[in-house]
Amino acid sequence: MKNNRRDFIIKAGLGAVAALPLAAVAKAPESKERFVHHVYFYLKEDNAANRAKLTEGLLKLSKVPTIKLFHIGEAAPTTRDVIVRDYSLSWLCFFENLEEEEIYQKHPIHLKFIADYGYLWSKVNVYDSIGPKR
Amino acid sequence: MKNNRRDFIIKAGLGAVAALPLAAVAKAPESKERFVHHVYFYLKEDNAANRAKLTEGLLKLSKVPTIKLFHIGEAAPTTRDVIVRDYSLSWLCFFENLEEEEIYQKHPIHLKFIADYGYLWSKVNVYDSIGPKR
Repeated sequence: MKNNRRDFIIKAGLGAVAALPLAAVAKAPESKERFVHHVYFYLKEDNAANRAKLTEGLLKLSKVPTIKLFHIGEAAPTTRDVIVRDYSLSWLCFFENLEEEEIYQKHPIHLKFIADYGYLWSKVNVYDSIGPKR
Repeated sequence: MKNNRRDFIIKAGLGAVAALPLAAVAKAPESKERFVHHVYFYLKEDNAANRAKLTEGLLKLSKVPTIKLFHIGEAAPTTRDVIVRDYSLSWLCFFENLEEEEIYQKHPIHLKFIADYGYLWSKVNVYDSIGPKR
């Protein structure tokens, strides 16, 4: 993660931070892997109001404490024929590892999200992948 | 992005960095959006040697300068029936915006990646999504 963090910081243009002594930033034990959870939602009725409603729910869901990073997106205007564009919203989360994603799956905030917003979608396609931080 | 960066830093346990004056870290102009490019590769012959070969290529590809973050993963051992697990490797990249992803698409490093490693895969499914940084 040290290299990864430095890379992140440098690419974000945060030279001042990168120059800090590493001891000043290396407080928490760090995982060597990253669990990527990417959900593509297909709304029953795909319109702006329902996308906004689902986004509202996802922002509540983002408070699950094991989520390290999240992103909510809509299909970009890219159109090469390998590109899948038929979903309504994309929900991407990073976790430290499988165990922390399992905590998310069972977390009361997640269960309440499904109970409160599950009526909106007809289908989800979920891609879970794991790999080393680099 | 300020909130997003602070969120990232806090979630990563880097309290010391978050306490810096913002002026010290806000050097580069920052995009308000994030472009997420997620590719699922299906290898012609899916085995460890070919996954390693493709990973080698993706690590070269990761040098395209407009890539802000990348991740290479394999399907996690999660098995709920909404989970898609039939791909060989996942390649995830973050860009600042559509224009920077277009630079990546046309970049010589990307073209060389396709020329050198394209023989390995039979199919790619690509999901491009855009949303605000939060």
